[in-house]
Amino acid sequence: MAGDPPHPEPARPSDLRGEAALLGRMLPHLRHGAEVEVGPGDDAAVVRLSSPRLVVTTDTLVEGHDFLPRATTARWIGRKAAVQNLADVAAMGARPTALVAAISAPAGTPAAVFEELTIGMTARAEADGASIVGGDLGRADRLTLTVTAMGALEEGQEPVLRSGGRPGDVLAIGTPRLGRSAAGLALVLGGRALVRTAAGTAPTVVLREIRDPSAAELVQWHDAPEPDLSLGWTGGRAAHAMMDLSDGLVRDGGRLARASQLVVDLDRDALAPDVGALADLAAELDADPWDWVLHGGEEHAMLAAFAPGEVPAGFRPVGRLRAAGADAPAVLLEGRAVAGEGFDHFA
Amino acid sequence: MAGDPPHPEPARPSDLRGEAALLGRMLPHLRHGAEVEVGPGDDAAVVRLSSPRLVVTTDTLVEGHDFLPRATTARWIGRKAAVQNLADVAAMGARPTALVAAISAPAGTPAAVFEELTIGMTARAEADGASIVGGDLGRADRLTLTVTAMGALEEGQEPVLRSGGRPGDVLAIGTPRLGRSAAGLALVLGGRALVRTAAGTAPTVVLREIRDPSAAELVQWHDAPEPDLSLGWTGGRAAHAMMDLSDGLVRDGGRLARASQLVVDLDRDALAPDVGALADLAAELDADPWDWVLHGGEEHAMLAAFAPGEVPAGFRPVGRLRAAGADAPAVLLEGRAVAGEGFDHFA
Repeated sequence: MAGDPPHPEPARPSDLRGEAALLGRMLPHLRHGAEVEVGPGDDAAVVRLSSPRLVVTTDTLVEGHDFLPRATTARWIGRKAAVQNLADVAAMGARPTALVAAISAPAGTPAAVFEELTIGMTARAEADGASIVGGDLGRADRLTLTVTAMGALEEGQEPVLRSGGRPGDVLAIGTPRLGRSAAGLALVLGGRALVRTAAGTAPTVVLREIRDPSAAELVQWHDAPEPDLSLGWTGGRAAHAMMDLSDGLVRDGGRLARASQLVVDLDRDALAPDVGALADLAAELDADPWDWVLHGGEEHAMLAAFAPGEVPAGFRPVGRLRAAGADAPAVLLEGRAVAGEGFDHFA
Repeated sequence: MAGDPPHPEPARPSDLRGEAALLGRMLPHLRHGAEVEVGPGDDAAVVRLSSPRLVVTTDTLVEGHDFLPRATTARWIGRKAAVQNLADVAAMGARPTALVAAISAPAGTPAAVFEELTIGMTARAEADGASIVGGDLGRADRLTLTVTAMGALEEGQEPVLRSGGRPGDVLAIGTPRLGRSAAGLALVLGGRALVRTAAGTAPTVVLREIRDPSAAELVQWHDAPEPDLSLGWTGGRAAHAMMDLSDGLVRDGGRLARASQLVVDLDRDALAPDVGALADLAAELDADPWDWVLHGGEEHAMLAAFAPGEVPAGFRPVGRLRAAGADAPAVLLEGRAVAGEGFDHFA
């Protein structure tokens, strides 16, 4: 409610060319499964879910706050917007079925941006078996993309909540490497990486005075992480508790532990390989790779609690859940408190 | 992708107070029906629909583009965001069940704004039998609110599309008055109305040199229109074609007609009372009340095509669908072409 806004554009007679032209660039990229009864173009979409137990989540990316145009591409923004929402559905133990996308953009935004966002969203959604079934186009001062993802739980299937962890459970993460997104972000924020795009060619991550050969891949991983979300609706269904890793292992692990009225004790040895893989780059940037691994967000991998001995393939143990003592912190590393619990937009 | 954005805020250790405090103001206002298995607070919500045939739509309001803070209130913005999405579900012949809301706002936005948005959304959703089941909070330079609304179609029930109109059908509108939102917008854009709010009191529409006694009500109607959406999932289910009136009678009537490969001929006499009710105010503003009635958007009333003699209660006839001749315009008024077809964000 702050600022000094201009007048909104009044409703006025005009032709249909603007929005229709954009849709003409976007809609051909959508692929619809047989479950889509009504796709884009009417007031709402109609989609047949596998059951009436809808699972739904929504999330927004805003230019300048959630991404920097000079450090990513529209296609990667689309992939990221899809993946962070698909991950929330997967984290309930459900397979995503459908997405809707609301895109607001400044006047003069090239049609190619809308098209590339669509390609990125569609590619990631399809990889997880979901279709983009509808959306909204509007104006804003900054490119803003809100995706809502939907799936269903079968009858009799319990949603996998954050609160179901039990004392003695193994905390496990559905990714072979933690901290990549944070490392990529550090490259971007340190002014050591930007992304160049040219029509018809793959985007190029341009690095400045960086020797580590994995750096470009880390920037791309930050811009469009590619977690294996199928772990949520396959092995993850056996979890006592599950969530996706949005805000870092310490903060999200703490959320799961608190929701379960437990404490999580992280295992230093289990995380050492993740830290080791980032050590050279961290030295170049004068950063602490433990900070990236413990506190780095935007991985969107599944984080879940399993009974001991029952950690399914694709997950690897990173700690243990234990009964909480009075006034104990929710997260420990080898039995000791860990500073900081991640990111808060409004703190 | 334009502009000169600042660095995004890096993921960093912080406490939980900011977002948790906002949620503490917002969540107590939500009311959940028994259909909500999992509400806000986990990765995603779980909602039991009345069938697996999901109906879904999404829409965004952006400060400065879709509303002016000085001319509305956060509660009315919430109501409008809810109603425009609920209307799209209703326009398929489905009753809405659930909403999710993604709110992005500048740093320093008062918690009361988030609370009032929630109250407004909840009140309108509840009135139509729907619950707010989840959302997302984030940062943006301008207040931005994206709502996604969901409902379900029963097995065997056909969705009411825009394309089902038949020659000879009566085009009917589910509101006793057209043009109110456009008239309210004209007051705002002409600098003749603003809205004052003070804690604990009802908002006041402050008018400048306006004599028409309906003016304040028209501004409120523009800020938060209150169409009878139940017409969509009651009488509207018998319609051959239906949509909600977002962008004006001419443009939306034209869309329905084109989707049905027909022409709509609007009835001047049927619209004359709507025009008459706005004539005094239009004279004060040196405006054409026919323009408000024919082209004014943001009413969100149901617009539907029925077999002759089968227009249900709550709808009133405003025209007829006819076979389209070669190169004929999609919308006529008493057999003559009408200039302009409404509003396009990107024209």
